[in-house]
Amino acid sequence: MLFIRGTIAHTPLRGEVELLPDQLLVVDPQASGRIVAVVPGEQEAACLVQHGGQAEDVLRLQEGQFLLPGFIDTHLHAPQYAYTGTGTHIPLMEWLETLTFPTESSFRDQLDLARDVYSKVIQRLLNNGTTCAQFFATVHLEPCQLFADLLEQAGMRAFVGKPCMDRQTPPGSLESTERAVADTEALIKYVRGKGLSRLEPLVMPRFIPTCSRALLRALGDLAAKHGVNVHSHIHEAYDEEEFAAALEGGGQVVDEAALFDEAGLLTARSVFAHGNLLTDAELERMAARGAAIAHCPLSNFYYAEKILPVSRLLHMGVKVGLGTDVSGGYDPTMLGAQRQAVVASWALHAQAVAAAEKPAELALRYQRQPGRDPDVLSWKDALWLATVGGAQALGIQDRVGTLEAGKEFDALLIDGRSGGAYDVFPSVTPSLLQELEKFLCLGDDRHITNVWVQGRPVKGA
Amino acid sequence: MLFIRGTIAHTPLRGEVELLPDQLLVVDPQASGRIVAVVPGEQEAACLVQHGGQAEDVLRLQEGQFLLPGFIDTHLHAPQYAYTGTGTHIPLMEWLETLTFPTESSFRDQLDLARDVYSKVIQRLLNNGTTCAQFFATVHLEPCQLFADLLEQAGMRAFVGKPCMDRQTPPGSLESTERAVADTEALIKYVRGKGLSRLEPLVMPRFIPTCSRALLRALGDLAAKHGVNVHSHIHEAYDEEEFAAALEGGGQVVDEAALFDEAGLLTARSVFAHGNLLTDAELERMAARGAAIAHCPLSNFYYAEKILPVSRLLHMGVKVGLGTDVSGGYDPTMLGAQRQAVVASWALHAQAVAAAEKPAELALRYQRQPGRDPDVLSWKDALWLATVGGAQALGIQDRVGTLEAGKEFDALLIDGRSGGAYDVFPSVTPSLLQELEKFLCLGDDRHITNVWVQGRPVKGA
Ligand SMILES: [Zn+2]
Ligand SMILES: [Zn+2]
Repeated sequence: MLFIRGTIAHTPLRGEVELLPDQLLVVDPQASGRIVAVVPGEQEAACLVQHGGQAEDVLRLQEGQFLLPGFIDTHLHAPQYAYTGTGTHIPLMEWLETLTFPTESSFRDQLDLARDVYSKVIQRLLNNGTTCAQFFATVHLEPCQLFADLLEQAGMRAFVGKPCMDRQTPPGSLESTERAVADTEALIKYVRGKGLSRLEPLVMPRFIPTCSRALLRALGDLAAKHGVNVHSHIHEAYDEEEFAAALEGGGQVVDEAALFDEAGLLTARSVFAHGNLLTDAELERMAARGAAIAHCPLSNFYYAEKILPVSRLLHMGVKVGLGTDVSGGYDPTMLGAQRQAVVASWALHAQAVAAAEKPAELALRYQRQPGRDPDVLSWKDALWLATVGGAQALGIQDRVGTLEAGKEFDALLIDGRSGGAYDVFPSVTPSLLQELEKFLCLGDDRHITNVWVQGRPVKGA
Repeated sequence: MLFIRGTIAHTPLRGEVELLPDQLLVVDPQASGRIVAVVPGEQEAACLVQHGGQAEDVLRLQEGQFLLPGFIDTHLHAPQYAYTGTGTHIPLMEWLETLTFPTESSFRDQLDLARDVYSKVIQRLLNNGTTCAQFFATVHLEPCQLFADLLEQAGMRAFVGKPCMDRQTPPGSLESTERAVADTEALIKYVRGKGLSRLEPLVMPRFIPTCSRALLRALGDLAAKHGVNVHSHIHEAYDEEEFAAALEGGGQVVDEAALFDEAGLLTARSVFAHGNLLTDAELERMAARGAAIAHCPLSNFYYAEKILPVSRLLHMGVKVGLGTDVSGGYDPTMLGAQRQAVVASWALHAQAVAAAEKPAELALRYQRQPGRDPDVLSWKDALWLATVGGAQALGIQDRVGTLEAGKEFDALLIDGRSGGAYDVFPSVTPSLLQELEKFLCLGDDRHITNVWVQGRPVKGA
């Protein structure tokens, strides 16, 4: 058993932080890291007796330290970590042609490069508190299997798939419909063969422009047959939309949600990246099916040219998680994604003010309301998106997302006073809530001293 | 003499990075750190003879290392560093009342707290590559003098002033017009008395709502009398604008540029934070006077509710630098300010697309243009704003901003391959320009191994 005593912070309800000082957590690393009990610290003695622990076994958090749920990144491309933070000012299609497709296809023949990039991106994510991620790997089977092996070794919780693309793709990455289906099934069996509850395969059409209807249909069948999650991109940007319109819509904007739905790919086990240009009808369909959006705010600024109204989607019943979209978004950290989600919501607010007939009146109305514009996300909303929202999107909300008894212990130990990226002045900001906000606004991996997945350490002793 | 041989990167022209591999720099720390020579590395032997150096004196940069000009933060509030990253979701006026005014006024009686906060913010800035900053301190003279002493000791280049406020201010910070003027003059003399070319006093009306016309006029006279720069806020947000309108405009929006101008405060030596709501007429007046805007993109998202069209201002001839606006913007780093400046420009682009009659057409037009929307800033534009733009705003462009011969050596040594916040895969991104972009997108203080101001080390040996 693992015993930890200290402050817990998490967000069972969106927009609200539950901050519980002096709790004793009991975690069973043998039972998938299940949180066996969370009790007030004063009950330590009785609790230790009950669970066969000694006082010296207890990890005791100091002032300025607290536990958070691990962050969940619902969308990133592992191979693109190789060049993230470069080419940020070239148009999407040029970026795909000069960096993305060549690098992704090169992994087939350069397994050493693949191993280097994959090892480092996994380490970078764990180091930054991402305990669970949903990954695009590359089109070819062998580097995908290697990636799954590395995820197994690192102890990360992950969903991993190979992007399928049987048309409109450069030769190095193009595959036949049959090959795409066969390799996806082979990867499903390979990952499932590991028998790890924390590692799941995916069915993964890259996006509408690179997938024939036959491929979509076959992938839908495969997802149903094996009971695996589906992950893809949807309505990301105008150029993608135009591309799809030319291929599938006779020049008209395509109802991508309907296309995925017809293929059996729009279900309560589907997550689609972006969705910035989804119509209301498509959003309603997604809500009805229980499908989720992976919101990638930084990437959206650069490529989508439209800001996702997150609050509106949630209000319509569409599940929303957060993603980094490395390397469409250059920042691999979920702390960065949370900050950009807040910024993007403020950008949406500025847009509403600018579009108002009397912008000053709209602005002043919001200034004076304590809750301000309901579209504006607070740092608490962002934390919810990065934990509970992501867990709901991936269908694992019963296992992770909060630090409640019964869940698995995917968690971060934060130390806000250990130096690093910011300073704390307790006489000016004395509350635990202020320390938490400081970490979420200013902290980085230096403040995340320990990370656990299923109760096992993946960072720190 | 200081001799450094390696790659130099800087932005003499906006939007363009000049990347010079294998240069030998010669710096004279005795002459305000003047860059005596920059010559191709192959001329090392002759250059050493000429300047009396030995081969073993040369600091030789390794692969992945390069020199950048120091960053210039044109606007932040040093006392607010105490609580930056807290209260990010409460309205401006509440934030001012509960955090800002109480903390700022408390520094008068708590010089130990002031010393602690000021020492740490200076260290944080230097550590993150800010070699020059323009600071708001607090209203009272004594803590301002302490702050100037600490800036002197730390070796930072800085402009520092006391905010003046003779009305509409809580009792702890309110001062009489006479006192505001007298203390400002006392601070000018105190700072000038140090005889440091890198430390300059400021004349600093906080903003229109807290300054009577008599105070503005007196401060304008003081700026002229002593030949010091002016720093204030202008048209930051709708609530500030409404506040000013009630006080000065009979309910109508006030021409703040004209008010400052009439007081002699709008000159080629004036920098105003924000300016988001400036009218075209006001911008033209600012351009005509040679005044500058300190653009604080992160703060603007939270408080201004309007995004500053930076490219447009530059096109109109208004000087623009970048600022962090700690703690209106929670992030004290100029790397963060550069990233948010790019994001803000993309948000402006998304706004234009959303407002277009046929958004898809506008978006696709920009996707296909290599330069995209001229309003969108690239990381190169942001680097220019953080160095040359800031130097121009502060009127020190002849001394800093680039690493050219004749300027003073305010510089950063970047090591992109020393671990820290990101990984480099040279086989995938082999160019020096890509390494620079990675640092600017992903790097943090861990990659800034050395910092010099006027040729003297302020970080690293
Ligand atoms: Zn993606
Ligand atoms: Zn300010």
